[in-house]
Amino acid sequence: MRIGILGSGGVAQTLGSALITLGHEVRLGARDASNERVRAWAEREAEPAGGGTFVDVAAFADQVALNCTAGAHSLEALEGCREALQGKILVDVANPLDFSQGMPPLLTVTNTDSLGERIQRGFPDTRVVKALNTVNHEVMVDPGRIPGAHTLFLCGDDAEAKARVRGWLGEWFGWPDTAFVDLGGIRAARATEAYLLLWVHLMQVTGTSDVSVRVVHP
Amino acid sequence: MRIGILGSGGVAQTLGSALITLGHEVRLGARDASNERVRAWAEREAEPAGGGTFVDVAAFADQVALNCTAGAHSLEALEGCREALQGKILVDVANPLDFSQGMPPLLTVTNTDSLGERIQRGFPDTRVVKALNTVNHEVMVDPGRIPGAHTLFLCGDDAEAKARVRGWLGEWFGWPDTAFVDLGGIRAARATEAYLLLWVHLMQVTGTSDVSVRVVHP
Repeated sequence: MRIGILGSGGVAQTLGSALITLGHEVRLGARDASNERVRAWAEREAEPAGGGTFVDVAAFADQVALNCTAGAHSLEALEGCREALQGKILVDVANPLDFSQGMPPLLTVTNTDSLGERIQRGFPDTRVVKALNTVNHEVMVDPGRIPGAHTLFLCGDDAEAKARVRGWLGEWFGWPDTAFVDLGGIRAARATEAYLLLWVHLMQVTGTSDVSVRVVHP
Repeated sequence: MRIGILGSGGVAQTLGSALITLGHEVRLGARDASNERVRAWAEREAEPAGGGTFVDVAAFADQVALNCTAGAHSLEALEGCREALQGKILVDVANPLDFSQGMPPLLTVTNTDSLGERIQRGFPDTRVVKALNTVNHEVMVDPGRIPGAHTLFLCGDDAEAKARVRGWLGEWFGWPDTAFVDLGGIRAARATEAYLLLWVHLMQVTGTSDVSVRVVHP
């Protein structure tokens, strides 16, 4: 597959490198095609890794692009990609975190709206699936870093797109199908983004970013 | 112990009845001393159950009162209790849920503030411990309704008050000490209150209110 990753930070690089290892063609995108981090990553990975602008990598994707931009700036970053993302699946991995007041972060949008919903509203011809945003990037590509069963939440308005994302995450990174809890439509992005407020505390109190939760019920 | 429960709804009644069974003296409080629900509960439970106004039950409590009022109106309900709660521990069980837009609910305060923090700021001479607000009232008094290990989050600015609440919840309802995850100061109430946005979805997708999460890490 040709996979476009919007973003150039740790999440984008970790996902990109893991997908390259699996034999996929991957491009990381940034505002500027000559972005230093993207260049360094592509040189380290060599072919079939590459970089480009956000629009370049959105157009490069054959079926799916991953939004790994900083959530507070995602809408701005994605702005020019409407046409390039048409008919494709966009996995929204981003969280609208605001670190301007220090730690723990605040959210730039929550409660009455969410980043996932804003993206879906802005990109009606793209199927947005919110997923992976509740775990650290190293756990995203290696769920076994956290021992035992733990949950990966996902949501989105399109059932087929969610099924495909679920399949890909299993195939690519080994997420067992039993790990997924599908919360419903994209509105539930409010829930998984707001969970970050809890997650940052969990990271602090457990002393590790290899931390998540398992949903338990009878 | 003489325990004051601020509130008259399902949470207040379930906690009250469980504490009566354990031999504690319990009073449920409402705005109006002749509140129907409180009267019916007290008659059903007979002595040592009773009712009164919010101030009455706050004054009745020897060490600890439980805030089980509707979160959206808690500050208003507690307003007259400042003196009566002085030097006591207040376990804040409430969530600032707003059902006016239907389901799933919104929060009346979140992100930059929380109900727990507002109560602590308004009651500087009372030690507020946010706890129990992340599980259904039947689970509060019977954690075994959910099989296996699951987490109960708590937070508050006073370490001794938190230790006592932890001890009471173990002694009263059988919460194992390993279930507790102490998230730190009362600011973390933002995290556990915002978790409700996720919890209502979990209840919907699992089809049971006997649902919670277990924190997992290496």
